[in-house]
Amino acid sequence: MNTETKKDDYKELESRFDEIGRLGYMSALIGWDSRVCAPQDAGEEQGEQMAYLSMKQHEIMTRPDWKEMFDRLEKRTDLNDWQQANVREAKQEWIRETALPEALVEQSAKTANAGQSAWVKAKADSDFKSFAPHLQKLVAVARETAAALSAKTGQKPYDALLDMYQPGMTSDKLDVLFNDLKEFLPDFIKEAQKQNVGGQIEPFKGDYPLEKQTEFAKRLMQTMGFDFNRGRMDMSSSAFQTTCGKDDMRVVGRYDLDNPLRSVSAIMHETGHGMYEQGLPKEHMLQPVGKPRGMALHESQSLLMQGPVLQSNEFIRYLSKQMNEFYKTDECSVEHLTKQMHSVQPSLIRINADEATYPLHVIMRYELEKDLINGDLEVKDLPKAWNAKMKEYLGVEPKNDKEGCLQDIHWAAGNFGYFPDYTVGAIAAAQFFEAAKKQVPEIPRQLEKGDFSGLKSWLNENVHSQASKLSFNDLIKKATGKELSTEAFKNSLRERYLGGKSEKTSVRSAALLQAKTAAER
Amino acid sequence: MNTETKKDDYKELESRFDEIGRLGYMSALIGWDSRVCAPQDAGEEQGEQMAYLSMKQHEIMTRPDWKEMFDRLEKRTDLNDWQQANVREAKQEWIRETALPEALVEQSAKTANAGQSAWVKAKADSDFKSFAPHLQKLVAVARETAAALSAKTGQKPYDALLDMYQPGMTSDKLDVLFNDLKEFLPDFIKEAQKQNVGGQIEPFKGDYPLEKQTEFAKRLMQTMGFDFNRGRMDMSSSAFQTTCGKDDMRVVGRYDLDNPLRSVSAIMHETGHGMYEQGLPKEHMLQPVGKPRGMALHESQSLLMQGPVLQSNEFIRYLSKQMNEFYKTDECSVEHLTKQMHSVQPSLIRINADEATYPLHVIMRYELEKDLINGDLEVKDLPKAWNAKMKEYLGVEPKNDKEGCLQDIHWAAGNFGYFPDYTVGAIAAAQFFEAAKKQVPEIPRQLEKGDFSGLKSWLNENVHSQASKLSFNDLIKKATGKELSTEAFKNSLRERYLGGKSEKTSVRSAALLQAKTAAER
Repeated sequence: MNTETKKDDYKELESRFDEIGRLGYMSALIGWDSRVCAPQDAGEEQGEQMAYLSMKQHEIMTRPDWKEMFDRLEKRTDLNDWQQANVREAKQEWIRETALPEALVEQSAKTANAGQSAWVKAKADSDFKSFAPHLQKLVAVARETAAALSAKTGQKPYDALLDMYQPGMTSDKLDVLFNDLKEFLPDFIKEAQKQNVGGQIEPFKGDYPLEKQTEFAKRLMQTMGFDFNRGRMDMSSSAFQTTCGKDDMRVVGRYDLDNPLRSVSAIMHETGHGMYEQGLPKEHMLQPVGKPRGMALHESQSLLMQGPVLQSNEFIRYLSKQMNEFYKTDECSVEHLTKQMHSVQPSLIRINADEATYPLHVIMRYELEKDLINGDLEVKDLPKAWNAKMKEYLGVEPKNDKEGCLQDIHWAAGNFGYFPDYTVGAIAAAQFFEAAKKQVPEIPRQLEKGDFSGLKSWLNENVHSQASKLSFNDLIKKATGKELSTEAFKNSLRERYLGGKSEKTSVRSAALLQAKTAAER
Repeated sequence: MNTETKKDDYKELESRFDEIGRLGYMSALIGWDSRVCAPQDAGEEQGEQMAYLSMKQHEIMTRPDWKEMFDRLEKRTDLNDWQQANVREAKQEWIRETALPEALVEQSAKTANAGQSAWVKAKADSDFKSFAPHLQKLVAVARETAAALSAKTGQKPYDALLDMYQPGMTSDKLDVLFNDLKEFLPDFIKEAQKQNVGGQIEPFKGDYPLEKQTEFAKRLMQTMGFDFNRGRMDMSSSAFQTTCGKDDMRVVGRYDLDNPLRSVSAIMHETGHGMYEQGLPKEHMLQPVGKPRGMALHESQSLLMQGPVLQSNEFIRYLSKQMNEFYKTDECSVEHLTKQMHSVQPSLIRINADEATYPLHVIMRYELEKDLINGDLEVKDLPKAWNAKMKEYLGVEPKNDKEGCLQDIHWAAGNFGYFPDYTVGAIAAAQFFEAAKKQVPEIPRQLEKGDFSGLKSWLNENVHSQASKLSFNDLIKKATGKELSTEAFKNSLRERYLGGKSEKTSVRSAALLQAKTAAER
């Protein structure tokens, strides 16, 4: 093979992914528009447009000559490390995209559509029975998907699903992390609850109109270093972040007229996502290697801002001053904000859970969905199993399935393997923040002044700009000097909720994790 | 040929245009977003996305089997009238799309890009010399385009350009309409100026903040019958309307903090466009036959609202009451609004011109561009020719080329044949309004109460729902009972500016027009 041909293979790969990436950005814009701008009746057609773009991407990914191209490209010795990583990531995308028979992909979309509609009704009526046949089908499709992926990759079936959201994630790794938290959290929660002095948290009493919350959120984003020349912000009833181009990161915040802190928390979360996207290497952004490293890593970037940063004593002091000045009030005192943020209370609904009880919501879902996929739990027994775990892990019991196993849309949409990443993200966030503060000790003092430069630079260099060049594990290890473990997360909780008390470390778990992950690489 | 094959040809045609239409809607959304939402740095990539979508449309339109398909479809006797019209319109699109060699299309885009950049600078510096070489190229490309189209269609070269914007328009037809206005307007303008009592118009003095203007504009759109389930409205510094889906018509208004009437005028104009699009037959909207009938007709729908309706004595009474109540003021009196709208003053800049002098701005551009395309005027002589016509038609003379031949972007963007449609639209608007009032006599009384139902129904039935089923001429004739002529336009001006005085009709011109257009059909 001559150099000319070699060159062409890589260029051809780039050019195909340029097109796939462009189709993806257009789809992202339509998706953003459908949630933020589009008139009521436009939804159906926008759905068709997105399906069309996705079909066009699929057409490119299923061209018959990919295998030969990858075979040739993998033999190449002239590619630089970004290019090699790009070939690796491209091949993974191709495997995922071609592993599933067309019929399964179609059935999957249909089942998820029907599942979501049925779920909306079942949840409203708290009627698990009407949803059960759908869940049965959803689980069946997910098992088939897992089996098809597993046949191509050699992963365990449930791991193949995990891998779709966070490449490199396995249930063995999760078991280590989650078992450790299951051991740590119950005692910690009790300890933290003791510090919830004075019972109920005082509600905010001031006037926090939408326009002011929007303006405050924008200022906060500027403070954090979000680049408004390459992005925008809107307010809606539900928060999200999406990227519509190399220079077009869109953040949507959520306001709460009764609680301006919820709006701050949501905007810091989504801005964390947006800053990750803005920090990706622009020259690679349309290529697989230039994509974010996975859902858990993405979540780590949002949770880092929403948890360790927002809830640090240093930043609370800055925020308190800003909020009192901006809203012309004095009720946003350091004490009030701290209490609002650092109260722990086990409860039934995941999305309202505090940082300490949240992982237990995730862990029980992880255990249940793994059992569903592996055939160890039958759909009809889900409500009972759910309620038992709630009681065991959190000490609370749902009165009905609406506040029990029907509360989340994920399974109804066919998303199995997605929940764990929320908590893996929180664990990684704490580890990143710990490493950043170690390497740039002035970060806390900076945050107290609303200066994000130290933290942003560290994240840009060690996380954002790495994109998908390294694996999830390697990125974390390179950035923080160690394997992912729960230590920093636990320390972070202790520090903020217990004022640094109760520093016992779970040596056993850390050692176990290290052994497991080392064995797997 | 068996029925099966026959059926497939038409279905194939529909399916191709479904895809072309979908690509067009996506492009429209990106275009809307780039002007209303997108962050500063996203523009370049959005431009690439639109070019990509346009290339995809072009790929479909240049498939090699169209000719045979049209040959077969034109022989079909089983198609209904909408289907037959669709084949006719589809073929026209195919001819336009394939008449031009790829190299010319590319050169055209490049020349227009360079032309617009050069124009921005030349206008700022009032430096025609620096723009002249670009205009030279733009004219050359337009002539080549005209020649290529003309070779395919048999039209005169300049007519081929007219036809791109308003199918069916010819310079012979324009000559009749425009010569008549050239005869009528100078005297009318003098007469109307005499009625500009009291010299200068009093400016508005009240407080008209952006949010209030936006809210008022939205209410007005609701009053007019714009369906917000199938559309939205935004405010920006320049107004436009675009359609991003069958149920997604977007109107962008322009505000003027010093003059709330300008915002009303702009929103009524753009809502006229939006209502046309909302009134198109939904089942055909992605097909050529379901498209708006052309630029002049589109403009007739906006100008009908902005001219004859907004400026009718009945609607002014309604508007005055609404504005005074909404803005809590008394300066929006009937007298003040009337004076604001009905003052005539020849001036240099087209976009600021009143309704009576506007056609003369258009006519001189029409004459000049026709001469440029036909080779009867050299680019270097344009400023002199421009200034001479301004003096002759409007009695004013530009001090420099910035307020002369450099004021409009159209030619710099390669748009020759576009200007005439503004005035053809105004002429058609008056004729439609006259016919509507004749057939639904309660329209004026309804407008006085802010009730658009009679007018909207008439337009829906006679104009909007017809889409491109009929030719431009036939649509007008069917809706109004006569050929397009200047009579209603002149009457409308007289009625509003002179209070109905001076009703002499130009019998000669009307007869001439009838003879000409009859000959051409």
